[in-house]
Amino acid sequence: MSKAKTIGVILSGCGVYDGSEIHEATLTLLALSQRGFDAKIYAPDQNQMHVVNHVTGQPATEERNCLTEAARIARGQISPLSELDLRDLDGIVIPGGFGAAKNLCNYATAGTDLEVNPELEKVLKQAHEQGKPLGFICIAPIMIPKVFGPGVRATLGAKGDDSAAFIKMGGEHVECGVELAVLDEKHKILSTPAYMVAQTISQAHTGIDQLIAKLAELLDA
Amino acid sequence: MSKAKTIGVILSGCGVYDGSEIHEATLTLLALSQRGFDAKIYAPDQNQMHVVNHVTGQPATEERNCLTEAARIARGQISPLSELDLRDLDGIVIPGGFGAAKNLCNYATAGTDLEVNPELEKVLKQAHEQGKPLGFICIAPIMIPKVFGPGVRATLGAKGDDSAAFIKMGGEHVECGVELAVLDEKHKILSTPAYMVAQTISQAHTGIDQLIAKLAELLDA
Repeated sequence: MSKAKTIGVILSGCGVYDGSEIHEATLTLLALSQRGFDAKIYAPDQNQMHVVNHVTGQPATEERNCLTEAARIARGQISPLSELDLRDLDGIVIPGGFGAAKNLCNYATAGTDLEVNPELEKVLKQAHEQGKPLGFICIAPIMIPKVFGPGVRATLGAKGDDSAAFIKMGGEHVECGVELAVLDEKHKILSTPAYMVAQTISQAHTGIDQLIAKLAELLDA
Repeated sequence: MSKAKTIGVILSGCGVYDGSEIHEATLTLLALSQRGFDAKIYAPDQNQMHVVNHVTGQPATEERNCLTEAARIARGQISPLSELDLRDLDGIVIPGGFGAAKNLCNYATAGTDLEVNPELEKVLKQAHEQGKPLGFICIAPIMIPKVFGPGVRATLGAKGDDSAAFIKMGGEHVECGVELAVLDEKHKILSTPAYMVAQTISQAHTGIDQLIAKLAELLDA
């Protein structure tokens, strides 16, 4: 039996409104495990943009660190993004949640003028140059045009403000149902809308599972 | 099509070391959704016993509330345990994580002298008297003898300190593999070890899925 391939999963906190969407992150880890992948989990060692009370939806007056909070999803098995070494990884997946738009990039505040976390941008560009497949879930694909330049096909679900922003930045938006994933074959970039459109966790699961299935196909090819 | 049955899921924070185990909680919601159940999520509106930094494993000097943190897993759709009305529910499931042993009961500090959160104890006793099936995951079954009295069959995985404590309190411990669930038919009480023994998230998934499958069988019967 050949050595298991390893996928990097990049988180950005713990909770849909200020960090990684917990279901999406967990379902990503589940789909990887079920297909025999090892997962290595990373998050930037930096404060979150802010903390949101998930009962009220209102910002709270405290600070939390992306890495420390993401460690909750990772059951403590996590490394700072600065320690990510691409030699360890066969591909990378980024789950969604507002953390992807607040902590990994600043789309939530800057819109189409977004900047991507420099550590993350460097890692993604290098992985892409090395031909490693990359998966973006939910709102995470919003950073694709900024990182990889124009012309990459990806989905943010249905047409709306986010797909319009994606197109304005140079992306080629593909409408996609919640239970499917989009593959840009030329760039080996995958995306699925998950909670951009999911009404239930089982819908989100199906799309994420599709994304990981296509990732597995790319890595066996 | 008949109205979907509704299962209460009782959480105790957000993170394996001081709250609900995130994978177990998420996989419970997934299995319920996949079988067509509605889930209603609850947590006690009280401070956690403490907060643990999940990178270092060390206690942190801050306070967090079980309900507010559990809302992260629930994507904001959560109610205080005090508002739980059994007329809304066809059954109840309690995922594990140290929160079940620190916040829902005090097994982590009191051992076999444990006390169960009074709101929770009342709800569980009433649900049991009404013949509603109840599921306990990971360390959560430790509270079964205290709530329901001696003689209930349940699992904490393999033999060890926790199973010994369970037996000392009057429980009938059943060793159980990670991919299976134990049913005490007389009491309609289900249990599965999940991360008491799971080495991978897909192992935990299989056992939790089994538990929900058996819950579905009980509710169709």
